Amino acid sequence: MSSYPPAFMRMVEELSRLPGVGSKTAQRLAFHMLRSSPESARALSNSLAQLHEQVKTCSVCFNLSESELCPICADSRRQRQFICVVEEPNDLGAIERTGEFMGLYHVLLGSLSPLEGIGPDELKIKELLARIGQGGIEEVIVATNHSVEGEATALYLARLIKPLGVRLTRLASGLPMGADLEYADQVTVARAFAGRREI
Amino acid sequence: MSSYPPAFMRMVEELSRLPGVGSKTAQRLAFHMLRSSPESARALSNSLAQLHEQVKTCSVCFNLSESELCPICADSRRQRQFICVVEEPNDLGAIERTGEFMGLYHVLLGSLSPLEGIGPDELKIKELLARIGQGGIEEVIVATNHSVEGEATALYLARLIKPLGVRLTRLASGLPMGADLEYADQVTVARAFAGRREI
Repeated sequence: MSSYPPAFMRMVEELSRLPGVGSKTAQRLAFHMLRSSPESARALSNSLAQLHEQVKTCSVCFNLSESELCPICADSRRQRQFICVVEEPNDLGAIERTGEFMGLYHVLLGSLSPLEGIGPDELKIKELLARIGQGGIEEVIVATNHSVEGEATALYLARLIKPLGVRLTRLASGLPMGADLEYADQVTVARAFAGRREI
Repeated sequence: MSSYPPAFMRMVEELSRLPGVGSKTAQRLAFHMLRSSPESARALSNSLAQLHEQVKTCSVCFNLSESELCPICADSRRQRQFICVVEEPNDLGAIERTGEFMGLYHVLLGSLSPLEGIGPDELKIKELLARIGQGGIEEVIVATNHSVEGEATALYLARLIKPLGVRLTRLASGLPMGADLEYADQVTVARAFAGRREI
């Protein structure tokens, strides 16, 4: 496509490397940026340039952080006897938005996936065990995804943590709110059935 | 959402200003960039910073260009007696990809839209008339979109260009390839009927 200048095509190429962005979307985004003010393009450019420099992971829980401790670990009002284990920082965000949990987190930075070559050593499991080993932990809530990899990770963690005498729980599996039984997949219905509670 | 660092949230905010990118997609993109190498983030940042500096519009046809003349206007093999009028540079790209047209273009940089305050003076219509006025033009092909604004723009151009004694055409309106009559909207079918051709 020689009808567009090289700087524009470079932009399109960089954008189309993003997940969920094909070459058509990349072109549309690039055209949008050209139409918008140079200032807004520069603002995005600067945020991008600073992203890796400024955003690190928390030394305790591996949440995203600009300082040694993330805002949650540094918050003295959080209940330090509860640790919620999640796969990625965005999972942590999903739980924070509910406002239901006031404990601390531990981000594994992934889930066990032998096919992709991700074993226990690639995840922050050693660090989790060390935190539990320091004592004072009452309950570890495993909130890895309810996918094959997330389930495998939860089982692996259970084998390691149960012997330490800490209460170990997993988020409930069942029908999502607003769901119709008719349209739910059978594994979900089976899980919801097995996990039924008295009303 | 105090659970993420400010530099990360700034990135998410900048990204969610893009068209078609909501706050969830913006977060997903930002997480992706954090996971990918600092080099790839820097490459995207640099492309963005250079975009407005390097990409200008062609002084003749207003296509995107890094130099005074765009690659198409500068190409001596193009047939200079034909001008295809499009709304935006991406429309030009769509026609170039067909390989059907070997003439020159004129990009209006928009279409008439009184509701959005876009009148003839906001578009490159004066410049188009000046190009036609210089002589040597046999045919002007109006390839504005087949939308309300595009049609209005085509009619407006027709009123101005017809008196100049230049052949004026418009892209055919009809059923898209692969379309089923049953599922086509009635305006499209009516246009296809009116524009029927001998086989």
